[in-house]
Amino acid sequence: MKLINNSYKKELQLVNRLIKSEIINETVIQELYDYIFKKNGKQLRPLLSLIASSPDKRKTSKRVQIAAIIELLHTATLVHDDVVDESPLRRGAKTINNFCTNSHGVLMGDFIYSKAFMLMVDLSNLKILNELSKATNDISKGELIQLDLVGKKEVTLDELLQVSYFKTGRLFEASAKCGAILVNENDKKYISNVSSFAKNLGIAFQIKDDMLDYSQSSKHIGKPTLQDLREGKITYPLYFAMKAADTNDKRFLQSFLGVQTKYNISIVLEKIEALGGNHKTEELLINYIQKSKKLANKIENKQVREEMLNLSKFSYERTK
Amino acid sequence: MKLINNSYKKELQLVNRLIKSEIINETVIQELYDYIFKKNGKQLRPLLSLIASSPDKRKTSKRVQIAAIIELLHTATLVHDDVVDESPLRRGAKTINNFCTNSHGVLMGDFIYSKAFMLMVDLSNLKILNELSKATNDISKGELIQLDLVGKKEVTLDELLQVSYFKTGRLFEASAKCGAILVNENDKKYISNVSSFAKNLGIAFQIKDDMLDYSQSSKHIGKPTLQDLREGKITYPLYFAMKAADTNDKRFLQSFLGVQTKYNISIVLEKIEALGGNHKTEELLINYIQKSKKLANKIENKQVREEMLNLSKFSYERTK
Repeated sequence: MKLINNSYKKELQLVNRLIKSEIINETVIQELYDYIFKKNGKQLRPLLSLIASSPDKRKTSKRVQIAAIIELLHTATLVHDDVVDESPLRRGAKTINNFCTNSHGVLMGDFIYSKAFMLMVDLSNLKILNELSKATNDISKGELIQLDLVGKKEVTLDELLQVSYFKTGRLFEASAKCGAILVNENDKKYISNVSSFAKNLGIAFQIKDDMLDYSQSSKHIGKPTLQDLREGKITYPLYFAMKAADTNDKRFLQSFLGVQTKYNISIVLEKIEALGGNHKTEELLINYIQKSKKLANKIENKQVREEMLNLSKFSYERTK
Repeated sequence: MKLINNSYKKELQLVNRLIKSEIINETVIQELYDYIFKKNGKQLRPLLSLIASSPDKRKTSKRVQIAAIIELLHTATLVHDDVVDESPLRRGAKTINNFCTNSHGVLMGDFIYSKAFMLMVDLSNLKILNELSKATNDISKGELIQLDLVGKKEVTLDELLQVSYFKTGRLFEASAKCGAILVNENDKKYISNVSSFAKNLGIAFQIKDDMLDYSQSSKHIGKPTLQDLREGKITYPLYFAMKAADTNDKRFLQSFLGVQTKYNISIVLEKIEALGGNHKTEELLINYIQKSKKLANKIENKQVREEMLNLSKFSYERTK
């Protein structure tokens, strides 16, 4: 399915051009620009922000700036994430920590973070600054909570949902909210509707991500299958499978946590499927997709509403 | 010598109390609070800011907040620095990357950074936000430049001074500047005088730091002697010694770069001393101390001027 129409494609090009112009003049980072930014992801966060701010196209230069800030913040978290997870690949390309060193990953992430803050301050909008600084703090909180869960043999659904919110939903929420604040500062209802929609969309997005990591065909998402399991992270499919498992099956599944083996992948996948892990995760996904649609339907602006509903549909159907 | 008088001691206590109250309520970080914040350093940066803002004591709650933000920013860079340098100790205590993992270091640093930004936004002062976001970006630039110099067999004095400015002088400068902006927003002369003073003080502080790493008695600064050399970093004493050395001596000194040996420390120290490395570094230090004093003497406010001159004296004389 088509994620975005041409007008947003053009705006995302402007976003990427702004990011490039901010980064490429810095000698310390320009060589690594291609490694960090060339392989664009789906850019859902800047897109959310552009859609939320679309009712006032006269403000497009600021709209693009906010979207670029959000993409920079997201990129900084990815760069640090890859150091934390010791990931060799991201979107099919070598990570900075792999291509250079962990130290480069840490410092490059800091550079991108602070660049985002500089662009934020340049907007001179304290409400937006407030939202984005809080969101950044919440993201790091989510990462720390997740780090403490690594290696645990059991987690709760509440813990998984909390991590999904802080790690992913929070920046989705802030993206839409800041776009809305820019163009409709006094329309509390609009701001609240697009924010709540985006928060639930973000959680759904994370659930789908976790599903894809357990899917046979997930090779084309650019990271190896069962990466979460190998890193010792329990995510939704494993959580639900373990919940339905007897003691033996549970121990069997737990024995793969944090193990780097390349064998037995299909055995694990079959066991999780047989225990209903994927099915239950899909149910949870549908739940959050429905919530997001319900909230999107409260948005009065027809065009924004339809674009947001389109994002919900895409987030459910995507296969990578 | 006495670094600070009692009124600043009390204000620094308020700074540390504010930091504690911001951190200790966060479950993800409270356990690590003691490791990160208990061993206070000299707290020169918050002190600079408090002195620069001292002409208006009515604003003390904001003065303390700025000082706390600056200490948080500094702490975040230290936590990431320790990951980058793989340092086991800081101020005599285990670093986070040593006590926990590198991942904890990365994420804890991000958490503290973003907390600092939240407190910054809370000040609602765009000039201060502008200065601090730029300074943070410059610091990360300095760290990246330094990282690229690691392992090089030769560096220039310009490169060393650039790193000293970005890594250390820049936050000294921002600390004083933000204090000055808070209380004297329209007094450009005052702001410029305290900023330029602090910038040069910061560079002097870094030169002294590098000297102490080559000093026999530097064990009580809480990090091992010759740490920079072992990490493959050329700093001032080695730079000046190599400049004066013949080909053989130069190769001899270069052979220790990046080597973790615990032996031969005294041989290296003697060689650097014999080649005038320490003496030349001391000359450079005196140069920057003099510059800072000259700039301090331009400050019209007598009390601020004297406190700043006292900091210059301390930075020259300190033995740890």
